[in-house]
Amino acid sequence: MTQFSQDFRNDLAKLMKWRRDVRHFRPDPVDRAALDHCLAAFALAPSVGLSEPWRLVNVVSDRARAAALANFRAANERALAGYDGDKARLYAGLKLSGMQDAPVQLAIFCDEATSKGAGLGAQTMPEMRRYSVVAAIMNFWLAARAQGLGVGWVSIIDPVRLRDDLDMPAEWALVAYLCIGWPVEEMLTPELETKGWERRDPKLAQLLER
Amino acid sequence: MTQFSQDFRNDLAKLMKWRRDVRHFRPDPVDRAALDHCLAAFALAPSVGLSEPWRLVNVVSDRARAAALANFRAANERALAGYDGDKARLYAGLKLSGMQDAPVQLAIFCDEATSKGAGLGAQTMPEMRRYSVVAAIMNFWLAARAQGLGVGWVSIIDPVRLRDDLDMPAEWALVAYLCIGWPVEEMLTPELETKGWERRDPKLAQLLER
Repeated sequence: MTQFSQDFRNDLAKLMKWRRDVRHFRPDPVDRAALDHCLAAFALAPSVGLSEPWRLVNVVSDRARAAALANFRAANERALAGYDGDKARLYAGLKLSGMQDAPVQLAIFCDEATSKGAGLGAQTMPEMRRYSVVAAIMNFWLAARAQGLGVGWVSIIDPVRLRDDLDMPAEWALVAYLCIGWPVEEMLTPELETKGWERRDPKLAQLLER
Repeated sequence: MTQFSQDFRNDLAKLMKWRRDVRHFRPDPVDRAALDHCLAAFALAPSVGLSEPWRLVNVVSDRARAAALANFRAANERALAGYDGDKARLYAGLKLSGMQDAPVQLAIFCDEATSKGAGLGAQTMPEMRRYSVVAAIMNFWLAARAQGLGVGWVSIIDPVRLRDDLDMPAEWALVAYLCIGWPVEEMLTPELETKGWERRDPKLAQLLER
């Protein structure tokens, strides 16, 4: 029986409490060993039918980074246009991506057409392949935070355009654009809460009964 | 700076290695304190715009459990019909849910219509709300495993039918049906691999470059 100590469980809760979506990165590089350590967490994630549908693209070239940043800026402008008054002013003042600072940037795709797993578990819910990729990202995020690395998930982006700009296959769906690096500061409170956009529910997740 | 020790990081990797999708549960009950400890991990998950769109239903009544089990069986029969020969025989021999044994069963939904978060981050990728729910499930899964609890994610299910059978609102999307309890045995290798359905890739997740 592989047991985990109460100390470990306490630290795991602390890890989850201190995990943040980071948008402010120091320019210091992330060495490859640290990144590989986090990437190892992908292979430990659950995936539907053992399909392991995650596909990872390291966005390194000036051209690819510029395309991703332009994509974010256009999507962010469109999103801003959807708010009025105080909410628009507040939105305009938020920093919603660390794409100009983060030393490592990964585009994470789901291969919707993989034959691995032979479709098991994905007949009635084909979205399970994308959910498997999200589960792997969460493993990665926690492994990164345990090393002191910050991760920011950018979703203000046109996923089809990014896939095309990166020349990825049509059957790949963008799940996340991740910014990774050493955070400028560590926070217990999400920045969206500090800045007054939204607050977390202080209560335990409610259980309805049926 | 909130640092985590090398011992903790090693144990975190061990936790991820020993996390399995469990389909064989002992009949022993799960006490409410243990369940609440795991549910606390939901509130620590990232969510797009702090929308916290997870909605949790504890499936307890005979009627609700019977509806969920019938749903699974029908979907599983349809899935089996899609395989031929050896693959069909192999599929038919797999145990793909612990719904007849698991003492706790949760239907996890995403409220697609929540106004919380005011749509931030979900304009170009509205699927981010469902991805937030998956991220929370992954937190929950790891917290459960750290206590020795097993979690099994059933996706061989008609999500719309289950939502209707449980009388949940039309704007809620089923993300997962989770079986939770004390596992009969602990395994380092996924059951789908042991039974010969599919194997995990032994390599580190590859990084394409762009």
